[in-house]
Amino acid sequence: MKRYEKFADEIAELIRSGMLTPGEKVPSVRHASRTYGVSPSTVFQAYYLLEDRGLIQARPRSGYFVREHAKRPLHEPEISPRLSETTDVDVSELVFSVLASLRDPATVPFGSAFPSPDLFPLPRLARSMAQTVREMPAREVVAEMTSGHPDLRRQIALRYMVSGVMLPMEELVITTGAMEALNLCLQVVTEPGDLVAIEAPAFYATLQVLERLKLKAVEIPVHPREGIDLDALASSLATLPIKACWFMSSLQNPIGASMGEDKKERLYALLKHHQVPLIEDDVYAELYFTREPPKPVKSHDRDGLVMHCGSFSKSLAPGYRVGWVAGGRYAEQISRLKLMTTISPSVPAQAAIADYLQHGGYDRHLRKLRHALERQQGEMLASAARHFPSGTRVTRPCGGYFLWFEFAEQVDSLQLLQLALAQGISLAPGPIFSATRRFTNCARLNHGHPWDERSEDAMALLGRMIKSF
Amino acid sequence: MKRYEKFADEIAELIRSGMLTPGEKVPSVRHASRTYGVSPSTVFQAYYLLEDRGLIQARPRSGYFVREHAKRPLHEPEISPRLSETTDVDVSELVFSVLASLRDPATVPFGSAFPSPDLFPLPRLARSMAQTVREMPAREVVAEMTSGHPDLRRQIALRYMVSGVMLPMEELVITTGAMEALNLCLQVVTEPGDLVAIEAPAFYATLQVLERLKLKAVEIPVHPREGIDLDALASSLATLPIKACWFMSSLQNPIGASMGEDKKERLYALLKHHQVPLIEDDVYAELYFTREPPKPVKSHDRDGLVMHCGSFSKSLAPGYRVGWVAGGRYAEQISRLKLMTTISPSVPAQAAIADYLQHGGYDRHLRKLRHALERQQGEMLASAARHFPSGTRVTRPCGGYFLWFEFAEQVDSLQLLQLALAQGISLAPGPIFSATRRFTNCARLNHGHPWDERSEDAMALLGRMIKSF
Repeated sequence: MKRYEKFADEIAELIRSGMLTPGEKVPSVRHASRTYGVSPSTVFQAYYLLEDRGLIQARPRSGYFVREHAKRPLHEPEISPRLSETTDVDVSELVFSVLASLRDPATVPFGSAFPSPDLFPLPRLARSMAQTVREMPAREVVAEMTSGHPDLRRQIALRYMVSGVMLPMEELVITTGAMEALNLCLQVVTEPGDLVAIEAPAFYATLQVLERLKLKAVEIPVHPREGIDLDALASSLATLPIKACWFMSSLQNPIGASMGEDKKERLYALLKHHQVPLIEDDVYAELYFTREPPKPVKSHDRDGLVMHCGSFSKSLAPGYRVGWVAGGRYAEQISRLKLMTTISPSVPAQAAIADYLQHGGYDRHLRKLRHALERQQGEMLASAARHFPSGTRVTRPCGGYFLWFEFAEQVDSLQLLQLALAQGISLAPGPIFSATRRFTNCARLNHGHPWDERSEDAMALLGRMIKSF
Repeated sequence: MKRYEKFADEIAELIRSGMLTPGEKVPSVRHASRTYGVSPSTVFQAYYLLEDRGLIQARPRSGYFVREHAKRPLHEPEISPRLSETTDVDVSELVFSVLASLRDPATVPFGSAFPSPDLFPLPRLARSMAQTVREMPAREVVAEMTSGHPDLRRQIALRYMVSGVMLPMEELVITTGAMEALNLCLQVVTEPGDLVAIEAPAFYATLQVLERLKLKAVEIPVHPREGIDLDALASSLATLPIKACWFMSSLQNPIGASMGEDKKERLYALLKHHQVPLIEDDVYAELYFTREPPKPVKSHDRDGLVMHCGSFSKSLAPGYRVGWVAGGRYAEQISRLKLMTTISPSVPAQAAIADYLQHGGYDRHLRKLRHALERQQGEMLASAARHFPSGTRVTRPCGGYFLWFEFAEQVDSLQLLQLALAQGISLAPGPIFSATRRFTNCARLNHGHPWDERSEDAMALLGRMIKSF
């Protein structure tokens, strides 16, 4: 990372923490250069970058100011109320019908689960692919069908190490995307009828997998910024025979919450006390906007109780279908279950990603990607404040490419979806994120695609529809 | 296909059917040219090809003769006795420990499940891969994650059509290898505790999947040449609540049997009568040595009762992990289940294979591959006759790359495996192919690797070990 990028990150942190407030003037180049002991050109470059990230803006003849995304920004939603019961999950049909309706590539993709593939370095990755398949020894194509391509496992273990998580390579099982990893983990630690603690709201595929495996959900409320309610979890763990937890501790989908370091540590202690394994779905790990990457709960795991699932689908190569799990004490069972179901993900895809990680400039790409997502988040937040009714609430996650909106109570997001689709706009309605089909007046909107006039018009249209309820 | 290849196939058929017997002189070039109305050069080329396939051999100054693979060829095994009970499957541990022991790349790979990757056109396939990933529109990498890459589905549907099976593209679901397809099919039509009819002996992964899904096996005996015992199946279907059948109707693994056309038709009628779905595992479909390709049971399916599973892993690209199922009336359910577990196989791998199928010369490659496997089968049969005790029985499948050996009763193939591994030779012992751990004196040997001195020495060593029992 260059000096000006580091300096930009420091200023960004001041903005994020509220030390510099919206509308406030940022230090002049001369002043900043003197105060922080960096060259004026470093400050200039940093300010350009912050402008590109949508955090500051220049006013003619006055200098740079912290960007006010909106005159009257929208408020944050409150934490969802706790439900004490366990729930038989029955939302798969609803999810499928909603997902099917989102598939039209002509719509404005606010309902999409992926960022724009134009943000990914696909040509560079294609070069890695072309080179590795050309050079791959014939027998490697057959031989690497066990726990994963050794080069890829090494690269992933290295990335864990750099981020402070020491991991023996043997714990890593490469899978056909994180979705397979999550499925395998859950099957290894549960039997039909078992209870599994999940978040409310939760990623809809979590619900589908529970339903498919005939597991019962215990829904733990999630605070929009701080993540799951630990007290609620503690009391559920104390009273119910919960067999596993499936949580996203950072950049939770759909609500965007990231638990703090100490909260993650407390979560781990709680799980350890009850000896309940955690399936940690961390597929948005690389998409943080903060200066430091969030550490996973896995970083506290000394007992092999955490199965940490990752993926390249949200940050590099969706269609390559390469994910992994650091399976802790369950790694061997996970690997065996994989050998009985899909055997192995595509070997060339694994080899290509391994090569890219080593030579392609992944970290440089990730910085660009994060900046684009951050800028687009600002655009969507500002647009929502302009067009949505003033009572609307919205999250402001420290990363990722989802915003979670809470509209007035009478807004039915499933109906809203139908109205929106008719106008060529998609969105992800709240009820698909809940075992109990709650969050009827909520929706998840994707800002992972470059912001343009079409996005702005779509927000304006959505605003009118919301007001019509 | 060239004229001389067709003519060679006709002569090969005469040999296979016994019209031309081992040691018999084949018509002279001049005679054949006159009798069959083809040019002498066509006959010459055909005879060279037949020599290459290991079917005829030249004797100096005497002409070509049908090859005698052995002075005293080994006999065929008999059909296994029928077991009337249903069986809880419990062999997974055994299978895993055996498979783990086979993984050493330094051993003579008689125990391997794959043919030599050197027989595959991997450089040509790499070119297809390099080209498709370079040219792939970014959004395709995300968009094609539903039932499969459209070009690949089209190419597969086309191959079905050419082989006489009309199939709507909508029936096709592309999967992460056939293994995933088989798993999905079984999950769609069964619940834990259900009965599933399988073959005895059966592919070991079948047994592992049944065990994993807590299904009970009904073992149907398989004749070494004619396939499953239809009477036994009929009586099981009449008396037991069987929920599905999982059979390999052509080139069954491990025994190599292929059911005749009319037998397949009768099997279909029987299943239709009982309305029991068939999961047809047909991953060796392309590896036939006969003039005509065997048609699957699926070709008789007018009711969508057959889920026909195929793969490119045994004939083109093992590590690419691309298979499929023509799912009949279950296609939609299979597709949904896939979306909940692995979402999609690697998109670049699918696109590369689609491109190769269209431009790479797949049929030409397959002809070469079949000839190599046929020649190697002859070598292994001859070698076994030279080195194994005379009471040894062996199959002689019309395709594939497995031979199934039945040794004297006192031979314990699990012990034999240990002895063989100590000498750097692997083999697949009989008990891993049976829910009831039968076939203790049997073993499957792989002749999918080019035959050389090392293979010959390994057979001699094996022969000595077998005699030591």
